[in-house]
Amino acid sequence: MTTPPRAVMRARNALRAELADLGPGATIAVACSGGADSLALASELAFLARRQGWRTAAFLVDHGLQPGSDTVIATAAHACQELGIDIVETVRVKVPQGAGTGGLEAAARTARYRALTELAQRHEAHTVLLGHTLDDQAETVLLGLARGSGTRSLAGMRPRIGIFRRPYLALTRADTEAVCAHASLEFWVDPTNLAAHDGPLRSQVRGRVLPLLDEILGPRIADTLARTAAQSQDDADALDALAEELLTQALVAREPNAGQPDAEGAGLGTVPDSSESRNAMHVTLRLAPLETAPRALRTRALRAAALRAGVPAGPLKYRHVEEIERLVTHWRGQKPIDLPGAFTAWRASGHITISPPTLE
Amino acid sequence: MTTPPRAVMRARNALRAELADLGPGATIAVACSGGADSLALASELAFLARRQGWRTAAFLVDHGLQPGSDTVIATAAHACQELGIDIVETVRVKVPQGAGTGGLEAAARTARYRALTELAQRHEAHTVLLGHTLDDQAETVLLGLARGSGTRSLAGMRPRIGIFRRPYLALTRADTEAVCAHASLEFWVDPTNLAAHDGPLRSQVRGRVLPLLDEILGPRIADTLARTAAQSQDDADALDALAEELLTQALVAREPNAGQPDAEGAGLGTVPDSSESRNAMHVTLRLAPLETAPRALRTRALRAAALRAGVPAGPLKYRHVEEIERLVTHWRGQKPIDLPGAFTAWRASGHITISPPTLE
Repeated sequence: MTTPPRAVMRARNALRAELADLGPGATIAVACSGGADSLALASELAFLARRQGWRTAAFLVDHGLQPGSDTVIATAAHACQELGIDIVETVRVKVPQGAGTGGLEAAARTARYRALTELAQRHEAHTVLLGHTLDDQAETVLLGLARGSGTRSLAGMRPRIGIFRRPYLALTRADTEAVCAHASLEFWVDPTNLAAHDGPLRSQVRGRVLPLLDEILGPRIADTLARTAAQSQDDADALDALAEELLTQALVAREPNAGQPDAEGAGLGTVPDSSESRNAMHVTLRLAPLETAPRALRTRALRAAALRAGVPAGPLKYRHVEEIERLVTHWRGQKPIDLPGAFTAWRASGHITISPPTLE
Repeated sequence: MTTPPRAVMRARNALRAELADLGPGATIAVACSGGADSLALASELAFLARRQGWRTAAFLVDHGLQPGSDTVIATAAHACQELGIDIVETVRVKVPQGAGTGGLEAAARTARYRALTELAQRHEAHTVLLGHTLDDQAETVLLGLARGSGTRSLAGMRPRIGIFRRPYLALTRADTEAVCAHASLEFWVDPTNLAAHDGPLRSQVRGRVLPLLDEILGPRIADTLARTAAQSQDDADALDALAEELLTQALVAREPNAGQPDAEGAGLGTVPDSSESRNAMHVTLRLAPLETAPRALRTRALRAAALRAGVPAGPLKYRHVEEIERLVTHWRGQKPIDLPGAFTAWRASGHITISPPTLE
């Protein structure tokens, strides 16, 4: 037996490390699209599972957004069976059409994760592995940079979120192709480079932006972007946690508005869904802890307070938060600040209050 | 008299706000290169100074790196005189050659800021204004992204640093060109787009990367990048300050090594110069505060501790810090960690110690 190439060892070690907490008998699933990344992951999972005594599953989601997507998925399902994956299951999801490009991508993603979560529950999978690579992470960072909502938007994809794990975030796409080549696995390459689940924007970033950055800003810019993602995740996590502490210190009282039941509180960074707007309430904060806090914590705590009061997250922009902040740091008798959803923020007798619209 | 165009009002308001703390009689200088940004700044400074009673100065630095740079500078100096700037002074600096591209840019920047600081001292200027725009900031963020050292490297240029202020960070380059047009000021455009003080890398970012990002990621990507810079600055400042607190909590003792005098401590993020390596010392930290801190603070505190011990900043990489961190978070009896400059980090009896090389 020859020694496997370096990419295979990297892939294997990354997967082994990521699954070190799961003992024999655990069910481990992989989300497989037929691309090099997820087929490589399926292949290495099958390999390790034989040694570790895991039960394996491959979940294949057909979005039905491109002609021939059923054939791609069927071919991938067959490959997973050949690899010896215990459970191979395909689902076709319905993606609501006509929502525009960004809307379609988001809708496809939502449908996919919902289907994967349901499959995981049905098969009692401990985790669902996703094949995202360092190159995907670099693209995500650039897309986040274009959104421009600060450190959190540069944090890219998390290695773990909920039941999902991404063991290959430190591997390149080329690594996963090498793994497939070594295992004689034919992977699917979207001939249009416009995979429906990726979206044209990401394809443009992959096909045009990253190659140019690679040329100009130095080789392996993807590595650098992935490193930025990891550090930004740590930074954003720390700042969110510390801002939550600051909010707790500053919080005086939250009065349910006009007889509405008290909400649990949206929590920092959580996006309350529309039903929560019924739980609008007054949120009052003491000035003193806000005044002495670093700006990064103060703005985060004020944003969290606004969300807690029931201000809708979507239209709540950084410039609104900055205006509330000026009530704290640049007080010169301003009028109440108008916030989305007809909320207001105002300052009186050493406190900032965020109030829902007055109910007549 | 007609109303000045919007760009002029934006430029004027930005400058007025930035200089609100300076009363009549203050001396305010502008660093002028002859480009649209710094000529616009000189023009608006001259305008406001007449109303505010400021004394004005224009400092022009000729790097002598391009043929004809003396003419460019002389033309700009003449324009500043025409604008009614009180003191117009040109200096020619010597930039050490032969240090390679990156080295040459850095050397030119160092020489320029040294010259500007000396001129400011000589003329008792309260501040030296720099013409950097939102577009420059966007370029700096992208260049920082390529370096990949996390939130701090995305923070771009500060609005104020030392005696320098950058009132135009929220204005576009096009705004400053409109200001020049309104004042009938001819500004210099580098025909090669390879300004010596900018460097070819920045020119590539300006001429190729930003236009492509604008095309693909949406219009006004420069705005978005500048916003990211401002938020990353707040984030990095907060994290540095909180990490400094953590370090203070964790610090046990700093023993001067082998009879060397105790250093003042490099301070978080400060780069100790080579002379400080003579002040190498043992730095010992208690584990408990480090264990419970968020990762972003722990890694920053450990890096600061290493610098304080005397580890050279240049070769101290994030992976070294991660290895020290594993002594805290993933302890399984590791051997001492090798750090640059023959320093070591090791764990014993509830403490982490960073030690200089043993002197024989």
